[in-house]
Amino acid sequence: MTSHDIFSCKKHISIKLLHISMIVLGIDPGLATVGFGIIEIVANTIKPVSYGCIRTESDESIDSRLLTIFNEMDEIFKKYEPDCAAIEKLFFARNVTSALYVSEARGVLRLLAAQHDVSMTEYTPNQIKQAITGSGKADKRQMQDMIMRLLSLDEIPKPDDAADGLCVALCHINTTGLMGSMNSIKIKTRHNIGYQNI
Amino acid sequence: MTSHDIFSCKKHISIKLLHISMIVLGIDPGLATVGFGIIEIVANTIKPVSYGCIRTESDESIDSRLLTIFNEMDEIFKKYEPDCAAIEKLFFARNVTSALYVSEARGVLRLLAAQHDVSMTEYTPNQIKQAITGSGKADKRQMQDMIMRLLSLDEIPKPDDAADGLCVALCHINTTGLMGSMNSIKIKTRHNIGYQNI
Repeated sequence: MTSHDIFSCKKHISIKLLHISMIVLGIDPGLATVGFGIIEIVANTIKPVSYGCIRTESDESIDSRLLTIFNEMDEIFKKYEPDCAAIEKLFFARNVTSALYVSEARGVLRLLAAQHDVSMTEYTPNQIKQAITGSGKADKRQMQDMIMRLLSLDEIPKPDDAADGLCVALCHINTTGLMGSMNSIKIKTRHNIGYQNI
Repeated sequence: MTSHDIFSCKKHISIKLLHISMIVLGIDPGLATVGFGIIEIVANTIKPVSYGCIRTESDESIDSRLLTIFNEMDEIFKKYEPDCAAIEKLFFARNVTSALYVSEARGVLRLLAAQHDVSMTEYTPNQIKQAITGSGKADKRQMQDMIMRLLSLDEIPKPDDAADGLCVALCHINTTGLMGSMNSIKIKTRHNIGYQNI
């Protein structure tokens, strides 16, 4: 390969990278609160597009709360058209009743992914911690600090469930190698991207 | 009250009963198999309208299997327009992973009830056994024999999950007093009702 060839090759890759745009949706599931974070990959940068949470009222029936989650997350799928999605896996048995309710909400969220033809990957809490901080034993505060730094946010995303949603999305980007290693990511600042918290 | 009053009263009740028609959907939830049974109450009789099961393939993704359950049960809701529904409650913790998957399917089924504005009641396995046989300790065979007898079927409904779906529907009819006590139910025979197994 000549230096010219190398230059052409690099240019070609660069042009290809400029056209790569991918929307990743991360979900922290629950019945009372569903956290979500949406991150866009453009060329070799990532930018938070939106984050927030869906809340349901405890005095409503379970069926009605599941319908609220379905309707609101359906709007998010339609608005942001994610290319792929990731969701936190349940990994506890301390409170079985609570786990069963969260699973019902997870069922509705996974159904939505299938309806929108979006592949959804599961990650355990430890996998998410490992991917964001390098340690499977990181606490919530360490995770939040890291997500703020990685996404160049002025402050820790609130509420916690929304920050968790962003962590799940970033975990997926890192784990699948969508952007290479996290260290090499050139991150746009919040002010460049028109991010919003819906 | 005179004998005439009693006659009028009885006649009035009879006329009212003749106009009562209610479709009850019973569901035995699962990820691999969802059993269902549909029973119609007309006046003071009950008749099985349909029973069967939805199956999903184990080599498909969970999301895809949940979508199959959603689409097929949605068709059942549209076709039979149930007035109310009942579903078996999860009541075990031996295999937590399995329970979580069944819960995801339950979430999809409960979502459908909410989307079709149908109230869905939960019953534990013991409540269902008690309502059908009078004993919370009845085994599967006793339940199947009882459902065959109560619905005047020529044979035990197959597969087991479909029979379980019919049991859940009958449990709801009995528990809510929709037909008074089970002993007073006048049951139409299979040949009168055009029941079908879909």
